Amino acid sequence: MSRGSSAGFDRNITIFSPEGRLYQVEYAFKAINQGGLTAVGVRGDTCSALVIQKKVPDKLIDADSMSRVWKIGGSNGAVVCGLSADSREYIRRARYETMNWNYKNAYEMPCDQLAHRMATIAQVYTQEPGTRALGVASLIIGYDDENKLPLLYRTDPSGYTAGFKAVAIGAKQTEATNFLEKKLRKKTDEEKWGLKETAELAITTLQHVIATDFKPSEIEVAVATSDNNFRQLSDDEVEEILTIIAERE
Amino acid sequence: MSRGSSAGFDRNITIFSPEGRLYQVEYAFKAINQGGLTAVGVRGDTCSALVIQKKVPDKLIDADSMSRVWKIGGSNGAVVCGLSADSREYIRRARYETMNWNYKNAYEMPCDQLAHRMATIAQVYTQEPGTRALGVASLIIGYDDENKLPLLYRTDPSGYTAGFKAVAIGAKQTEATNFLEKKLRKKTDEEKWGLKETAELAITTLQHVIATDFKPSEIEVAVATSDNNFRQLSDDEVEEILTIIAERE
Amino acid sequence: MSRGSSAGFDRNITIFSPEGRLYQVEYAFKAINQGGLTAVGVRGDTCSALVIQKKVPDKLIDADSMSRVWKIGGSNGAVVCGLSADSREYIRRARYETMNWNYKNAYEMPCDQLAHRMATIAQVYTQEPGTRALGVASLIIGYDDENKLPLLYRTDPSGYTAGFKAVAIGAKQTEATNFLEKKLRKKTDEEKWGLKETAELAITTLQHVIATDFKPSEIEVAVATSDNNFRQLSDDEVEEILTIIAERE
Amino acid sequence: MSRGSSAGFDRNITIFSPEGRLYQVEYAFKAINQGGLTAVGVRGDTCSALVIQKKVPDKLIDADSMSRVWKIGGSNGAVVCGLSADSREYIRRARYETMNWNYKNAYEMPCDQLAHRMATIAQVYTQEPGTRALGVASLIIGYDDENKLPLLYRTDPSGYTAGFKAVAIGAKQTEATNFLEKKLRKKTDEEKWGLKETAELAITTLQHVIATDFKPSEIEVAVATSDNNFRQLSDDEVEEILTIIAERE
Amino acid sequence: MSRGSSAGFDRNITIFSPEGRLYQVEYAFKAINQGGLTAVGVRGDTCSALVIQKKVPDKLIDADSMSRVWKIGGSNGAVVCGLSADSREYIRRARYETMNWNYKNAYEMPCDQLAHRMATIAQVYTQEPGTRALGVASLIIGYDDENKLPLLYRTDPSGYTAGFKAVAIGAKQTEATNFLEKKLRKKTDEEKWGLKETAELAITTLQHVIATDFKPSEIEVAVATSDNNFRQLSDDEVEEILTIIAERE
Amino acid sequence: MSRGSSAGFDRNITIFSPEGRLYQVEYAFKAINQGGLTAVGVRGDTCSALVIQKKVPDKLIDADSMSRVWKIGGSNGAVVCGLSADSREYIRRARYETMNWNYKNAYEMPCDQLAHRMATIAQVYTQEPGTRALGVASLIIGYDDENKLPLLYRTDPSGYTAGFKAVAIGAKQTEATNFLEKKLRKKTDEEKWGLKETAELAITTLQHVIATDFKPSEIEVAVATSDNNFRQLSDDEVEEILTIIAERE
Amino acid sequence: MSRGSSAGFDRNITIFSPEGRLYQVEYAFKAINQGGLTAVGVRGDTCSALVIQKKVPDKLIDADSMSRVWKIGGSNGAVVCGLSADSREYIRRARYETMNWNYKNAYEMPCDQLAHRMATIAQVYTQEPGTRALGVASLIIGYDDENKLPLLYRTDPSGYTAGFKAVAIGAKQTEATNFLEKKLRKKTDEEKWGLKETAELAITTLQHVIATDFKPSEIEVAVATSDNNFRQLSDDEVEEILTIIAERE
Repeated sequence: MSRGSSAGFDRNITIFSPEGRLYQVEYAFKAINQGGLTAVGVRGDTCSALVIQKKVPDKLIDADSMSRVWKIGGSNGAVVCGLSADSREYIRRARYETMNWNYKNAYEMPCDQLAHRMATIAQVYTQEPGTRALGVASLIIGYDDENKLPLLYRTDPSGYTAGFKAVAIGAKQTEATNFLEKKLRKKTDEEKWGLKETAELAITTLQHVIATDFKPSEIEVAVATSDNNFRQLSDDEVEEILTIIAERE
Repeated sequence: MSRGSSAGFDRNITIFSPEGRLYQVEYAFKAINQGGLTAVGVRGDTCSALVIQKKVPDKLIDADSMSRVWKIGGSNGAVVCGLSADSREYIRRARYETMNWNYKNAYEMPCDQLAHRMATIAQVYTQEPGTRALGVASLIIGYDDENKLPLLYRTDPSGYTAGFKAVAIGAKQTEATNFLEKKLRKKTDEEKWGLKETAELAITTLQHVIATDFKPSEIEVAVATSDNNFRQLSDDEVEEILTIIAERE
Repeated sequence: MSRGSSAGFDRNITIFSPEGRLYQVEYAFKAINQGGLTAVGVRGDTCSALVIQKKVPDKLIDADSMSRVWKIGGSNGAVVCGLSADSREYIRRARYETMNWNYKNAYEMPCDQLAHRMATIAQVYTQEPGTRALGVASLIIGYDDENKLPLLYRTDPSGYTAGFKAVAIGAKQTEATNFLEKKLRKKTDEEKWGLKETAELAITTLQHVIATDFKPSEIEVAVATSDNNFRQLSDDEVEEILTIIAERE
Repeated sequence: MSRGSSAGFDRNITIFSPEGRLYQVEYAFKAINQGGLTAVGVRGDTCSALVIQKKVPDKLIDADSMSRVWKIGGSNGAVVCGLSADSREYIRRARYETMNWNYKNAYEMPCDQLAHRMATIAQVYTQEPGTRALGVASLIIGYDDENKLPLLYRTDPSGYTAGFKAVAIGAKQTEATNFLEKKLRKKTDEEKWGLKETAELAITTLQHVIATDFKPSEIEVAVATSDNNFRQLSDDEVEEILTIIAERE
Repeated sequence: MSRGSSAGFDRNITIFSPEGRLYQVEYAFKAINQGGLTAVGVRGDTCSALVIQKKVPDKLIDADSMSRVWKIGGSNGAVVCGLSADSREYIRRARYETMNWNYKNAYEMPCDQLAHRMATIAQVYTQEPGTRALGVASLIIGYDDENKLPLLYRTDPSGYTAGFKAVAIGAKQTEATNFLEKKLRKKTDEEKWGLKETAELAITTLQHVIATDFKPSEIEVAVATSDNNFRQLSDDEVEEILTIIAERE
Repeated sequence: MSRGSSAGFDRNITIFSPEGRLYQVEYAFKAINQGGLTAVGVRGDTCSALVIQKKVPDKLIDADSMSRVWKIGGSNGAVVCGLSADSREYIRRARYETMNWNYKNAYEMPCDQLAHRMATIAQVYTQEPGTRALGVASLIIGYDDENKLPLLYRTDPSGYTAGFKAVAIGAKQTEATNFLEKKLRKKTDEEKWGLKETAELAITTLQHVIATDFKPSEIEVAVATSDNNFRQLSDDEVEEILTIIAERE
Repeated sequence: MSRGSSAGFDRNITIFSPEGRLYQVEYAFKAINQGGLTAVGVRGDTCSALVIQKKVPDKLIDADSMSRVWKIGGSNGAVVCGLSADSREYIRRARYETMNWNYKNAYEMPCDQLAHRMATIAQVYTQEPGTRALGVASLIIGYDDENKLPLLYRTDPSGYTAGFKAVAIGAKQTEATNFLEKKLRKKTDEEKWGLKETAELAITTLQHVIATDFKPSEIEVAVATSDNNFRQLSDDEVEEILTIIAERE
């Protein structure tokens, strides 16, 4: 990047550069990968699953007090990559939006509505001066009770959001995406993926891109299932899936 | 562009350059083409039609969760090109303005009123400091029940709007415009264009400038018809039109 | 313009340069001519007339949806040259001011009051920071029912306004002004100019400076007459006047 | 002016330069002379008089719609030199202040009170940031009914004001001041100057510095007289005085 | 002053330079001397006196309309040196503060309270951004009815104030201070200075530093005396004192 | 750090640098170590302990008036490293948040809730312009009455927080962390650490990294115990523990 | 100080430099010493004492109107070094805070509470933009009626405060501190310092660092004693102590 083209344009949150770019948004994307984490989400047929590494930056940290998997409300939950403090702020807002929706509409906020709402909030940070964008990307999963469908959404600092069949965010996003595409291409319509199959693909993908075999304590796995529930899998459940994966190979 | 003429003037949203230009508005236009999409609108005799490529940036995206065709209210709908997050904000505002009009006037907001209202909002972003212009251009169609006329409008970041017989926005705007002009010149007053003829020209134009033959899943087609209705054509309907086009050639 | 004298002073809307100039106002004047249009106004004895080219920037535009002649209220109307979006904002405000006056005073806002009010609003943009000046100049005509006089005013971004016997704005302003001065010098007090004579001079002047013979569809002509009326002439009426002009030459 | 001493200090309205100067105020003074006009005021014994050139910048302007002589209220009136749009704003405010005073105090605002009030408003523009100073100087005349004295005041962008026996503003201010000083030195206490003598000196001074013999249509003359009245002299009255002047020479 | 040490620090009203200086306050002091005036105050035993030159910048100015001596309220009055418009603003505020005090406390505001209040207001201009300091210094005199003492205070743009036995402000401040110190050193406790002795020293000092013999019309003299009164001496009274001075020498 | 990469980005509190960093937050971390202090926290089985050096910057300071150990409310307390004035502000806010929580929830604010609340407040300073981040890091301890667990949290200017088994902040943070990791690795599950064992490790660690043997007056030790209590150990209690440590070695 | 490290960071009140410093606070410290004054405070056993030079900048100043010793309320009082106008503002605020406390709590504000409150106010000026820090340091003394202890606190622009046994501020702070440390080291626990002993040390210290023998009129001495009283010593009392000091040497 030459000085001539960016100097000045990248210090104001809400102006366009001569090429029509919003530099501050692009820089916020850089912040997402600073923690070096990768998260993977997969949408199965009756269940969506999320997996993220549980990297404790300091051995003295009480691992129980740290989690990158957040229950938001109803069947919705998320993993967030990026600045740690911004992650908490992101989740605080997501929970507030959920409570607000539930109160107004008297039914649980659907996962797609939540993702769109969070993206709308992110867009405002890119258009109005003052507050900077949050340096985080998130994967949100939930279960759509009306259409009997698990859902999987991704949000980022640009205010973009979309539903996905499978998706990755963070440091190894590109490699994970390639791996997921290959795997999904092979999936036939007859295969019906429940909790285990969905979580298995998510974990396999993460193991593949990190190139290591996980212990249950090294990852966090969460699922949204048809019983309108979002929950983090216990270490035993994760162990069981890891065994299946190990045996398969 | 020399530094001497633009440095400084293009970093403030609402000041004139020495030549009387508003640089930030010009840069916002650049943002419109960043997605590389092209959209085409055609006004027939009983129907207006819009067509836009359905380019899914990522194979893992759930194509159903993504659409660049938006129903706004009554017979009005739009396609939007440009920054994805800004598109959603644009549509959110258009829907709000429509609801507001309907509530106050007790009849559906006409398409031209909507286009002028959205253009007025865009003009404010070019005159008052603070909020940047939205990096999007839109084609709005609707059916004027009073005059029994289909309508087609275009809006952009400068706050300009006009009604069109046919129009294109996005990456291949120039080529599409030339093609449309040629086609419309040949149209005789006897020809009465209904849904199919209108949609056919829109799709043909897009196929021409992209230089590819579409499958129904690769484009989104929407129409506003005299029954005060805006709807997106189903894949079968699109297939049918694509077949007609293929046979004609 | 040397950098030394303008750098810095021309980026703030409301500060004086060392020579006592307001650069942002001067740059706004540049914006007026960007469309390349010229408009001419003439005040006759029982009627004022405006004429402006109808240049459609794009052959696909629905010419009916575009007009640079605006009815404001009562016998008042205007043509506006300059940025398209700013023109609409200018007229929106003029209509609001007219409604406001009519409501408060219970009689139609006179043309001169309207011109002064619009100039006062423009002056504020040159004195207070924040909002930029509108990049437009306007010709306002109306009929003063009290003094039985047609009126013709001009406003611009500096907040200046004055009544005129004949006046031009836009790209060919200087040539048109010279032509009008010559014609008015020859007018005798016996000549009484009604609608046709007034419109004729306006059209002749525009034809002279554009150096082309117009078709009715290529110009818009509007008049304010003693029956407290502002109206745009129909194509037939314009045709008739064009014929007179052609025969005279 | 060297860059070293002014750069930066002259772009903010309300900061002192290292020499204790307020550059923006000095630049506003430059704006006063841009129109090239000169105005002269003289205080006689029963009457104050103002004279200003009637320079119409454009032959097509309706001279009747332009005047630099403004009635403000009661016996008070003014001529204003400088930016045209700022002049109107200045007078608008002066009229508002007069109405306000009259309403609160139930007698006509005296000329000196008005001048001090307008100067106080001007001072605020030099002390508080935001709004720029008005680029105008004014001469205000009025008749003090309590002391049976005609009054003559001058205001400028610095917020300075004072009463004068005779005074000039504008392009030829220095020459006019010298001429007035010479004339007033010769005046004896026995001479009692009424309307004609006062207006005569004002016009003579203007003729002297412009070095031309005026026609009545080329100047505007206004007087404030003991009958609590401010009025502009008719062309006949001006003609009469011009004749006296011509005969005297 | 080198650029390195002041550049930047002196363009913001309320920041410290690296040496702990407030440049804008220092520049405001420069503005005090721009008029070239000097004022002298002396505190006698039953009376305080002020004297200031009456320099009329323009021979045509009505000398009666100009005074640098201002009655503020009760026995308090002041002379102000510096920017003319700022002086009026200073006095307007002092009068307002006096009225406010009188209303709240039901007795005349003492001179020292007034000086401290005006200094407190000046300090705010040096600490909070926005409004610049007033470019004036003042001498305030009054009579303390409770302690039966005449008072003499000085205020300046830094917010500093103190009571004085004798003091000078303005262009010749240093010379006047030296002269006053010499004279006061010779004063014995037996000498009781009333109105004449006090005014005499003030005038003598001014004559000394200006090196000229004044006529009564060339100076303004004001006194605050034990009868709770502030008044300007008439020309006859001044003449009488000038004669005493002339005879003494 | 090269100028090219940081210049400009590090002078605004809430913008991202091109690498996605928030420079102002990084600079705030530098402020934490300026006092040269180190604090250590250890979570035992029934008790959490904090220790910090009592370095009195000036021998004349009344040591009793200075403490870096703060009781916050209930069993919660903290030590704070960094700017002294910011420390007081940090504690003032923590106490306010505690009172607020207690009032709303009618039970003592748990230590983890307090840490998260303080981190949320810190995050706001990194996202919104205006107020700078506090230049402090803190260790907060408390006793979780519900889970019968002592707690230990750390907060910093980035808005990050986590629970710890043992942790250090300040100048010797790295050395202390290494020492603590070694010690904790050796701890067996059978060992149950009460007040003395916990405080002993904290003090030993501090002695190790400072490389000095403390007198009771040279350190401050505080504990949070199961009786819902936060208290600072008396000199006698500290003496006792120091003796144990000395004997052990 | 190199330009590279400070340029830019020191012109904004509330941003950190790359080293974690707040330059504007450091510059405010420079302002404290500009008056060249030194003040000394000593805490005895039944009394705290303050002494400060009475340097009258101008022989003409009425020495009675100037004092750097301020009674604040109850037994609390202070001396303030630094910008004169800021000193008055500091005391105004301290008095307001005292009144406010007394009204809310119905007992006199203790000295330590006052010092912490003033420090908290100073911290805000270092964290929030807009208002600059006050360029003053203060010594506050009082008598703690509850613990029967005299108190002595110091505040400065950084928001730091602490209790002291003895302390100095201003130009000769370092020398005075060294002298005080030596003297206090020699003090035995048997020595009980009352008013005289306490004041004696304070004065001796000041005499030592200024290297001159004072006359009573050259210093101001104030004490806070157990009868809940703050008072300035009379010249006779000071004379008496000076005599004791002189005899001792």
